Amino acid sequence: MDIPIRDLVWCADLAGIIAFAISGAVVALRRGMDIFGMIVLAFLTAVAGGVIRDVLIGNLPPEAFQSWHNLAISIAVGVLVFSFGQWLNRIESLVRLVDALGLALFAVAGTEKALDWGIQPAMAAVLGVVTAIGGGIARDVLAVQVPTVLTSEIYAAAALLGAAVVAGGHAFGLPPTETMPVGAILCLLLRLVAMQRGWKLPAIASTAGDRLG
Amino acid sequence: MDIPIRDLVWCADLAGIIAFAISGAVVALRRGMDIFGMIVLAFLTAVAGGVIRDVLIGNLPPEAFQSWHNLAISIAVGVLVFSFGQWLNRIESLVRLVDALGLALFAVAGTEKALDWGIQPAMAAVLGVVTAIGGGIARDVLAVQVPTVLTSEIYAAAALLGAAVVAGGHAFGLPPTETMPVGAILCLLLRLVAMQRGWKLPAIASTAGDRLG
Amino acid sequence: MDIPIRDLVWCADLAGIIAFAISGAVVALRRGMDIFGMIVLAFLTAVAGGVIRDVLIGNLPPEAFQSWHNLAISIAVGVLVFSFGQWLNRIESLVRLVDALGLALFAVAGTEKALDWGIQPAMAAVLGVVTAIGGGIARDVLAVQVPTVLTSEIYAAAALLGAAVVAGGHAFGLPPTETMPVGAILCLLLRLVAMQRGWKLPAIASTAGDRLG
Repeated sequence: MDIPIRDLVWCADLAGIIAFAISGAVVALRRGMDIFGMIVLAFLTAVAGGVIRDVLIGNLPPEAFQSWHNLAISIAVGVLVFSFGQWLNRIESLVRLVDALGLALFAVAGTEKALDWGIQPAMAAVLGVVTAIGGGIARDVLAVQVPTVLTSEIYAAAALLGAAVVAGGHAFGLPPTETMPVGAILCLLLRLVAMQRGWKLPAIASTAGDRLG
Repeated sequence: MDIPIRDLVWCADLAGIIAFAISGAVVALRRGMDIFGMIVLAFLTAVAGGVIRDVLIGNLPPEAFQSWHNLAISIAVGVLVFSFGQWLNRIESLVRLVDALGLALFAVAGTEKALDWGIQPAMAAVLGVVTAIGGGIARDVLAVQVPTVLTSEIYAAAALLGAAVVAGGHAFGLPPTETMPVGAILCLLLRLVAMQRGWKLPAIASTAGDRLG
Repeated sequence: MDIPIRDLVWCADLAGIIAFAISGAVVALRRGMDIFGMIVLAFLTAVAGGVIRDVLIGNLPPEAFQSWHNLAISIAVGVLVFSFGQWLNRIESLVRLVDALGLALFAVAGTEKALDWGIQPAMAAVLGVVTAIGGGIARDVLAVQVPTVLTSEIYAAAALLGAAVVAGGHAFGLPPTETMPVGAILCLLLRLVAMQRGWKLPAIASTAGDRLG
């Protein structure tokens, strides 16, 4: 590995920000929000996971508020989605691919950052998952829909796989330059295969659930 | 009182964690979430109140992220509820009893912790209520239902009674070893009686409310 | 300007607190919540924006938890709205005017506070907007409705205008005693004119949005 880890994390983070900003803007578009609401939801989806993580580890102000880069990306994404929204259904699969990439990158980068701040491995993995799924949850709460990350094909579980590789590797003394790419690739593969084959974790049939009500 | 207060708080906290984890997992089950979503919602319901309190008093990282105990409890509860979900309607009253116990314990423990951190009594009582009802609110927001804690029989008000006993006692110089048990018992009793008799706080009939729209 | 800026900010903040507490209590009333739920929603709507800002800039415990004033105001507002709720539709336009005033005041005061804490101008403006719209978003999330601040006539955009004046002025070395009144007045005017004329930012027709689903 000749590429320094800082550059790896930086690229991963940037791709994740773009992917999640797109998914936020698309949900806002479908809800009939105006262009300002689209930018707000793009920004929130892109940064909420990292912000929650930074608040919980005590890294204040959060990274996302220390520069204007994420904001500029969100504005650009909001304007682009607003302008070309009608073609988005043609690139739906591309959007889902980018989203899966963002999930994988945020999961491993979030876990590594929590470890850096002295959080113990098991909870660092939880914070990695929070980083990866927090933006999607915030987006769905504001759009008043049950968070898809809690109901769709293996999503949060894929993030946990990537986070667990990094956290477990740390517990066994492996360097993050090795565990982060492996964790991200495993997470991405699991998510992509689950999407394509419609894999889901077991759930009790909702009719059974309703009877409990 | 021979039992040291730290052990009292520890037991109260543990029972509260279990009670709220169960209530989170049950709501996830009714919403048709998969087993991973059940664990996420169990964990979130169990720790959200305490995490919000810890963030607001500046105790970072929050207690819930300093050990893996709450996570392990949430996983166990999620698996158990998933496995035995179909029998849960038979023990509905037991779940509600445990939930009332958790409410009482979190309210007094949360208030005492805020006082320890130098928050003044009135706001410490508010933080005690936040600790007690925060998990239930987070659970209902993710499950997209109006938080039951804001609409059901005397719930948040019972938490406030318990919190007010501890905060008021502190203002008058009474030791927490005395005010905490008294506050918890009063909160528990009020909640149980309100549940059994269907007591509610006054609300303007919703038809009147609708006319305002 | 003979009035010291601290008194200006204090008055602005107080008026904003009252305005947002009223809007929270009114939404709770329409949702059929009891009087306790009304006080909780009034308090949350009044303080959530400032609390989120204070958490993000690392000012812990947040200002709203350092005194009991906001709580006392929320209780008074909750009791008043509960008592006189049936007349509220007659003063609907007054409530909306007070809300617009709160928006303008929170936007400029929140931006100035973030600048004071060393946040750079672009992100300080974002935090000003968060301060101004955070309470309304928290209120709508708890009441399970798509946040009106993301869909109604120029609302968050008006907050951004006020915040941008203060943040931009700071970047060019202008004193907040001048930029804050100007920003607040511009924000208020834009919001009032937008309300009266039904101005909206451009949004893609929801039918177009639906087709994307």
